Amino acid sequence: MFKFEILYKSKKSKARVGKIYTPHGIIDTPNFVAVGTNATIKALDTKFVSDLDLQLMFCNTYHLMLQPGAELIKKAGGIHKFINRNLPIITDSGGFQVFSLAYGSVASELKSKGTKKTDGSVLKITDDGVLFRSYRDGKKIFLNPEISVQAQKDIGADIIIPFDELPPYHLTEENLNKSLSRTHEWEKRSLNYHLKDRKSQAMYAVVHGGINKEFRKKSIDYLKDLDFDGFAIGGSVGKNLFEMIEMLKFTTASLPHEKPNHLLGIGDIASLNESIPLGIDTFDSSYPTKAARHGVALTKYGNLKILKAQNIINFTPIEKDCTCYTCKNYSRSFLNHLFKAKELAAYTLTTIHNLHFMIDYMKRVRDDILQDKI
Amino acid sequence: MFKFEILYKSKKSKARVGKIYTPHGIIDTPNFVAVGTNATIKALDTKFVSDLDLQLMFCNTYHLMLQPGAELIKKAGGIHKFINRNLPIITDSGGFQVFSLAYGSVASELKSKGTKKTDGSVLKITDDGVLFRSYRDGKKIFLNPEISVQAQKDIGADIIIPFDELPPYHLTEENLNKSLSRTHEWEKRSLNYHLKDRKSQAMYAVVHGGINKEFRKKSIDYLKDLDFDGFAIGGSVGKNLFEMIEMLKFTTASLPHEKPNHLLGIGDIASLNESIPLGIDTFDSSYPTKAARHGVALTKYGNLKILKAQNIINFTPIEKDCTCYTCKNYSRSFLNHLFKAKELAAYTLTTIHNLHFMIDYMKRVRDDILQDKI
Repeated sequence: MFKFEILYKSKKSKARVGKIYTPHGIIDTPNFVAVGTNATIKALDTKFVSDLDLQLMFCNTYHLMLQPGAELIKKAGGIHKFINRNLPIITDSGGFQVFSLAYGSVASELKSKGTKKTDGSVLKITDDGVLFRSYRDGKKIFLNPEISVQAQKDIGADIIIPFDELPPYHLTEENLNKSLSRTHEWEKRSLNYHLKDRKSQAMYAVVHGGINKEFRKKSIDYLKDLDFDGFAIGGSVGKNLFEMIEMLKFTTASLPHEKPNHLLGIGDIASLNESIPLGIDTFDSSYPTKAARHGVALTKYGNLKILKAQNIINFTPIEKDCTCYTCKNYSRSFLNHLFKAKELAAYTLTTIHNLHFMIDYMKRVRDDILQDKI
Repeated sequence: MFKFEILYKSKKSKARVGKIYTPHGIIDTPNFVAVGTNATIKALDTKFVSDLDLQLMFCNTYHLMLQPGAELIKKAGGIHKFINRNLPIITDSGGFQVFSLAYGSVASELKSKGTKKTDGSVLKITDDGVLFRSYRDGKKIFLNPEISVQAQKDIGADIIIPFDELPPYHLTEENLNKSLSRTHEWEKRSLNYHLKDRKSQAMYAVVHGGINKEFRKKSIDYLKDLDFDGFAIGGSVGKNLFEMIEMLKFTTASLPHEKPNHLLGIGDIASLNESIPLGIDTFDSSYPTKAARHGVALTKYGNLKILKAQNIINFTPIEKDCTCYTCKNYSRSFLNHLFKAKELAAYTLTTIHNLHFMIDYMKRVRDDILQDKI
């Protein structure tokens, strides 16, 4: 049931407008994918998110394996039934989470200038898989391609991701090359396991290689001959926007154009604006929802800090012409009060606005591509 | 614009069905009043609460004076505009909060067997008013009848409460009598200040006297001759349900029946069932919403603890025939997961169910009274 259709290619750039067909509906591309780590977008409930018309939601297999467990979700009839969402869902493999929780963020790794090692949660990495400790209860857990894909089968998202290794940003070429080979092997095993029983799921390969042009090319060359439905750009994507865009330029040039691609973990407006002309179709990021919970509202004029003094007495909404539930009903002043009083409604209402903003932004992006403005 | 109309009196008890008319609409009685301390029901937004048809919302003047400040709410055009609620609101005087935060709850006071004094936040009580420290920033604040009523005028609720003293449960008769006289004086001053400029607000007297029959009678005798629009039963209402019902029996017997009455701070089902046949019209309590945030759902069959093991794999809703948003969309299993993952949606969804339950319960109570079943 999975299909990708390119409706229009911009005359101005490599940007394109398309549709991804999944068992739970269509994803218009380019599009933003919100992150619901624990099978819910933080501070919102599923139905509200669907009503906002968020077309693709990203859930984290690692977290769901630990709580409530992939088997329980299977018993519920799959994640769509479990959380009551009748729109597309994508899950990752768990690999990224295991490694990134161990290494810390790229930012904190960069600060440490490569001296920071893991936090000890990754106990052993072999060619078969990874042994690590659960962040929840300290239990030892083993994850490998087959176990990850089986969990993703049990969870039952529309799009799944093969198990991969996330190497830290600071790595010698030799070690990066080794990691790349292991990742490719793991991805192939993941795909083989997936193809035994597709269950109407699509699987996106994860392109690795860090910011090394040759390695990215090597990764795509290896993966493009396998029966993947799309490509996710993963691994280290650079330490700043400039590095990322350089990497994306040579990476997207090599990607098979007829398949959808996804940029993992990126969702700020500056990155979107630079990446969409390179032909990126989907992006996921927890930034818009996380920012909301910290009182940062996204607007056409940049970020608005709701807690700033100028919003104490400001009875206009976050954005005057915004049609979201929050802007139609509440003022900045009321939101400022809710944040100060630490009321949960503050987090919910700002999350609604930010998600609406992102969804609306991507609609305008698609319109702009159709008019060759991008 | 305030008016109370008794539509029906039960043939079986003193229970009655009525309507309270306010500038922001009708309150059907008997009814439950949810508490929105900081001008929001915790974990919900105003519009959602209105859509649940919660007819009266209780806000705490003390908290609102500290944050965002009564003047700011006045600038916003009053609390209804500030929070976007077009249904009735009641505020208290701030007195109860100042004293109860200082003394702690009746339960903790009872445990201390009267040895527990204040926490030091009440600095000075004179016949004029109370000097206390803000729990927010330690600033000294003075509150007296005129200041409290002015704050309530600025906030602009439909029903307001005169400034009163909350004496601790353990008090000698002599001291209780002294407190009673001071409270009556403060209430009279509050009323006089209110009557200078009603602003379409109604003011309910607060009947005091603890569990002392004579004192309750004395309180009502004093207050009923003044121009109050209704009566709130306040002060110490007893250390258990039995004591409270005894107190309510002699108190309600003396209350002017043609005016609405309100039982302050009580909202559990057992208390409602015992109090409604005595003619109580409205009740406020944070219990249903607080219980929700602790994973306790109210049902026809008693309290349901969502975190209990039997709800891990239970794909039915909290209540099968419940028509609330939560029960129509989500299973116990999903809610159990959300609570374990500490997702805010858990608090929101359970609060929705509990509020719906209370609103629905009171509808059935009114029906039962109309059929002389209560």
